Amino acid sequence: MTTRKELYNSVDQLTVSKYAEVRFNEVDSLGIVWHGHYIVFFEDGREAFGREHGLDYLTVKAAGYTTPIVSSSCAHKLPLRYGESFRIETSFVNTPAAKLIFRYKLFNEDNRLVCSGETVQVFLDAENQLVLNTPAFVLNWKKAKGLL
Amino acid sequence: MTTRKELYNSVDQLTVSKYAEVRFNEVDSLGIVWHGHYIVFFEDGREAFGREHGLDYLTVKAAGYTTPIVSSSCAHKLPLRYGESFRIETSFVNTPAAKLIFRYKLFNEDNRLVCSGETVQVFLDAENQLVLNTPAFVLNWKKAKGLL
Amino acid sequence: MTTRKELYNSVDQLTVSKYAEVRFNEVDSLGIVWHGHYIVFFEDGREAFGREHGLDYLTVKAAGYTTPIVSSSCAHKLPLRYGESFRIETSFVNTPAAKLIFRYKLFNEDNRLVCSGETVQVFLDAENQLVLNTPAFVLNWKKAKGLL
Amino acid sequence: MTTRKELYNSVDQLTVSKYAEVRFNEVDSLGIVWHGHYIVFFEDGREAFGREHGLDYLTVKAAGYTTPIVSSSCAHKLPLRYGESFRIETSFVNTPAAKLIFRYKLFNEDNRLVCSGETVQVFLDAENQLVLNTPAFVLNWKKAKGLL
Repeated sequence: MTTRKELYNSVDQLTVSKYAEVRFNEVDSLGIVWHGHYIVFFEDGREAFGREHGLDYLTVKAAGYTTPIVSSSCAHKLPLRYGESFRIETSFVNTPAAKLIFRYKLFNEDNRLVCSGETVQVFLDAENQLVLNTPAFVLNWKKAKGLL
Repeated sequence: MTTRKELYNSVDQLTVSKYAEVRFNEVDSLGIVWHGHYIVFFEDGREAFGREHGLDYLTVKAAGYTTPIVSSSCAHKLPLRYGESFRIETSFVNTPAAKLIFRYKLFNEDNRLVCSGETVQVFLDAENQLVLNTPAFVLNWKKAKGLL
Repeated sequence: MTTRKELYNSVDQLTVSKYAEVRFNEVDSLGIVWHGHYIVFFEDGREAFGREHGLDYLTVKAAGYTTPIVSSSCAHKLPLRYGESFRIETSFVNTPAAKLIFRYKLFNEDNRLVCSGETVQVFLDAENQLVLNTPAFVLNWKKAKGLL
Repeated sequence: MTTRKELYNSVDQLTVSKYAEVRFNEVDSLGIVWHGHYIVFFEDGREAFGREHGLDYLTVKAAGYTTPIVSSSCAHKLPLRYGESFRIETSFVNTPAAKLIFRYKLFNEDNRLVCSGETVQVFLDAENQLVLNTPAFVLNWKKAKGLL
């Protein structure tokens, strides 16, 4: 992620926070949230971002595209335990590539970093073909958000 | 389930066993398999049954139907812990209704009953309409299995 | 559930509603919420009930007990799709037995019933032994709620 | 992962293959396995490796340690669909650090690469403190495997 950090900048004003509570069924036998659930939390954050900023799954679908995840990563700093609340911070990363990049930071109730991560999505058209140029509806969205 | 037991009989020869191991991520903070995962195990058993007896999801789909679950139940007798293997026994219940009924029994390594359950599925046609009579492909399947 | 309905009454004033949105990862290839996720929704409702009424997992644990699920059932009436919100209504069922019984009803945005279900939990003491009489902390809780 | 590739080498002879089938409940509304399930597949692979090579969760626990995941990544190349079988290839990466590093490759029935990924685990002692030197039981295990 170091090279990406130099190329692209996450857009501070395009950050959405979502609050959640640890569910009993998310905690493993060590008493901490099982690591795989963070991918769900990232999706929760991404969906909250999409709904707030008009870039949600149904908008993408209506434009004739799907945006499968092509890569994801997660670095864990602190565990979450049952009964804890946490905040998912989702930031849009403005890239010239035909991709959607989101960065995630989870914070516990003491505002300490629980984990950080990133997902990359590509655009497939109605024929499931990879789109090499950023679709018009995304360019328009970026203009409206002051990113172009 | 007592009344059903009188009306319908599970077909002993139409029982398929599938073996599995408890995954780390299936165990909760009490050290036992979280109860909701048994619904997944039932589906694993049902899919194993379908593949062995030609009544799998893709066969149903090719015939033009979907078979959503309309009810499910599970009674837990013993816990499963990490490191344990278990057997899922899935039995077809022969009903005159336009439904697919399966009963499940899970057994641990000592062959003791872990849980039992049941799912009921209905048939929807290509227009997502409920089908009131058992579809022909199921009647043919039942004949081939000696159930009609 | 018919016999239980005669013996026990769900306590109308002890009903808690929780609102949620269908996640992308909860929807199956038929475009509807996969049936197994409703067990998670029931747990979400039960935990919301516990937090609001002081009968949550951590309170139970502090009293020296665990309350594993011994049976669960779910009857599906309508599907939920991606983008839909829903309400989980969780009701405490007052039983003289040493059990915790909850009933659940899920409603979609049109306030139509999506599914109903029930879970039964027993009490295990610190030695994981089944408790035959309702623990004192539950009796006190019932008194405080006007159920005894 | 490029820099790690130079520092550490995955050990070819320490690679374990596990075969699995796509479950209905793992497929999303686009008809492909939801990306978050690959973290489960990686765990399935890691557990198969541990059982075959004596480095499983219960062995680690018996030695007085836990090994939480501190980072994970996944790069998706091809989708998996319902009805497909796949192979999870899990390789041990021999590092001098007090960590367990595994690399994963998933292959479809045509032996084409579906995804690759990596997880990193650290060692916590019985007091949940980070262990800075590789525990003796792991050094002994490495010697027995010809890695030291």
